[in-house]
Amino acid sequence: MIEKFERMAILFDFYGKLLTDRQQEMLNLYYGQDLSLGEIAAEFEVSRQAVHDIIRRAEKILEGFETKLGLVTKFNLEREKLEKVLDMIDQLEDNESLKEQIKKVIDEIVEIQQND
Amino acid sequence: MIEKFERMAILFDFYGKLLTDRQQEMLNLYYGQDLSLGEIAAEFEVSRQAVHDIIRRAEKILEGFETKLGLVTKFNLEREKLEKVLDMIDQLEDNESLKEQIKKVIDEIVEIQQND
Repeated sequence: MIEKFERMAILFDFYGKLLTDRQQEMLNLYYGQDLSLGEIAAEFEVSRQAVHDIIRRAEKILEGFETKLGLVTKFNLEREKLEKVLDMIDQLEDNESLKEQIKKVIDEIVEIQQND
Repeated sequence: MIEKFERMAILFDFYGKLLTDRQQEMLNLYYGQDLSLGEIAAEFEVSRQAVHDIIRRAEKILEGFETKLGLVTKFNLEREKLEKVLDMIDQLEDNESLKEQIKKVIDEIVEIQQND
């Protein structure tokens, strides 16, 4: 269950902007602010079941985007390889200052990827 | 005009899978296979104007995805920084074999990004 929650939070990070405003607001409260379905229902003055249905539907849409674009998979693969590059650079022995500069640029790449 | 064509071809690479099958087929012929509007119209047995409208509409949708997700902008920024890392690694002086391995992993990262 926690795994599913985390996966949805990540998918929302990547594709949330493609959802409607209402879907975004509800998913933000649910996955971002950790509110319960009942609390969100109270906030929007709709039934708990309505919130449940909107969130489930939005989750399916997010999964659909990942099936088509695979950004989360790519992101994880890229991160893994950048970690590998960092490890390898650590094994090099010369020019500490240049190595630090290289690592800084790699950190910047990771930041670009996370800035979703 | 060439710039617009190239930009659309790139946007289609990144977001094409989010379009309908028909939009994808037409844009693939137009941007991928370089067919004219008239040739595509003949292929689909519709008017040239209909093809024109479908392609223009699809282009607006692609631009909308880029406005929301900005993957092309991020991709370009990442590529730029990876090139910088490669240049810096070339300036390191020790362990040629390790440097080659690092470059290989960076090439793999670029391949992940391009595999859209």
